[in-house]
Amino acid sequence: MLTRQQIKLISSLKYKKYRDRHQLFVAEGRKIIEDLCPAFRCRYLVGEEAEIKALGIDAHEYLYVDDADLLRQISSLSTPHRLLAVFEKPTRPDINNMPPTKGLTIVLDGIQDTGNLGTIVRIADWFGIRQIVCSPDTADIYNPKSVQATMGAMANVDVAYTDLPDFVGRMKLFDTHVYGTFLDGDNIYRRTLTPSGLIVMGNEGKGISERLTPYIDTRLSIPNFSPESHSSESLNVAVATAVVCSEFLRGTYADDVLAKQL
Amino acid sequence: MLTRQQIKLISSLKYKKYRDRHQLFVAEGRKIIEDLCPAFRCRYLVGEEAEIKALGIDAHEYLYVDDADLLRQISSLSTPHRLLAVFEKPTRPDINNMPPTKGLTIVLDGIQDTGNLGTIVRIADWFGIRQIVCSPDTADIYNPKSVQATMGAMANVDVAYTDLPDFVGRMKLFDTHVYGTFLDGDNIYRRTLTPSGLIVMGNEGKGISERLTPYIDTRLSIPNFSPESHSSESLNVAVATAVVCSEFLRGTYADDVLAKQL
Repeated sequence: MLTRQQIKLISSLKYKKYRDRHQLFVAEGRKIIEDLCPAFRCRYLVGEEAEIKALGIDAHEYLYVDDADLLRQISSLSTPHRLLAVFEKPTRPDINNMPPTKGLTIVLDGIQDTGNLGTIVRIADWFGIRQIVCSPDTADIYNPKSVQATMGAMANVDVAYTDLPDFVGRMKLFDTHVYGTFLDGDNIYRRTLTPSGLIVMGNEGKGISERLTPYIDTRLSIPNFSPESHSSESLNVAVATAVVCSEFLRGTYADDVLAKQL
Repeated sequence: MLTRQQIKLISSLKYKKYRDRHQLFVAEGRKIIEDLCPAFRCRYLVGEEAEIKALGIDAHEYLYVDDADLLRQISSLSTPHRLLAVFEKPTRPDINNMPPTKGLTIVLDGIQDTGNLGTIVRIADWFGIRQIVCSPDTADIYNPKSVQATMGAMANVDVAYTDLPDFVGRMKLFDTHVYGTFLDGDNIYRRTLTPSGLIVMGNEGKGISERLTPYIDTRLSIPNFSPESHSSESLNVAVATAVVCSEFLRGTYADDVLAKQL
């Protein structure tokens, strides 16, 4: 059973203020919960007793509920799942005291949409990118909508928030190359891309902020194949991130491709 | 002013049954309406008189409304725009009496999500792909959520619905090459891709249907760079479509890239 206090606590985690205060976040649905368990400590697992026992997940406390209305009340989804988990937000080392990671890092400058953010984490995971660094005004990865959109991939990708000019400036001291995407950048298909570095993706409407722009070494652009179309002024930022990641990572296979073409 | 009958008609267009019966669909927001006007005949333009007059769009009838509640009532969005348009569905020639189009065609086999469908239309437009052919069980492009997700790109891309095995089988008589994406297909980065042909994308969960599979000439796959991750079992279908389109279209620039690498 859930106490009134637990109901209040879990419901409050829809709001960033309370996620920050309690250092907790919510994930819903069996698959996502299973994926997150190896990476985050589970405080509460909420659902029907039989279902929870079948899952065999290690949680601090199991809260058995057979009242669908109650799950609906604490869920932030319009169609709630039958399982809900409250996880502890991890305490990660300060990104500003860490050396550059190997490989690619995605840098998000003011991504507003929680769905886009979650999808970008899922894309990063697919392409083997283990670090995402976000500006403070980027959407919260622990927002329930972001969590659900990651489809569990946030277990495999570190998402940090910090002042971007500071972070990117410090990375450049380690000779890290900084790529950024712009509507008027160089054609990405014509540039040689390195297997490591930072890839900056900008806000859905405004792009990369003025404060960060001076730090970009290489300005990239996905060329528009319908320049005459009024409507296709931009790709969705998650879609653009996928195309950019693919273009960076396909190099892994470039030797084969080149050998075949010769 | 709107008559009671007009309110009822416009509200009913949230449902496919009534969109089919009246051969009408709704788009909301100034930018999308402006983009759709060159491609679709506008039956009603609904909004504040000043705003409509400033727009200068040719509509069959202008319905002036200064009651935000009324717009909310007929809108299918949770935060309605201040402009709403009712467009006539176009009467297009039967896709089964047409020869293959030049270039690439995207074939959608059972895409369920209206947002994914709209995003795919937007991606197609960006990459200059002018034709999408959908199975009858794919989401309706005239659903308000699909319309909004296209961001106006449906003005530039023909979206047709037909039995796919019939259509694809007939295209093969014209020597059209048929690509399909599978979780276990050939690594797309290692295959030579032609600048024309059909690209089949399958259902979000189940992939390409059994009936259509025998028609696929080349099975493609976007390799997973995190094979050890449980969570990244698939990319979102719209994201996968973008990566695949990019990989087909980048060939436009391949000569330059190749020349640079030698």
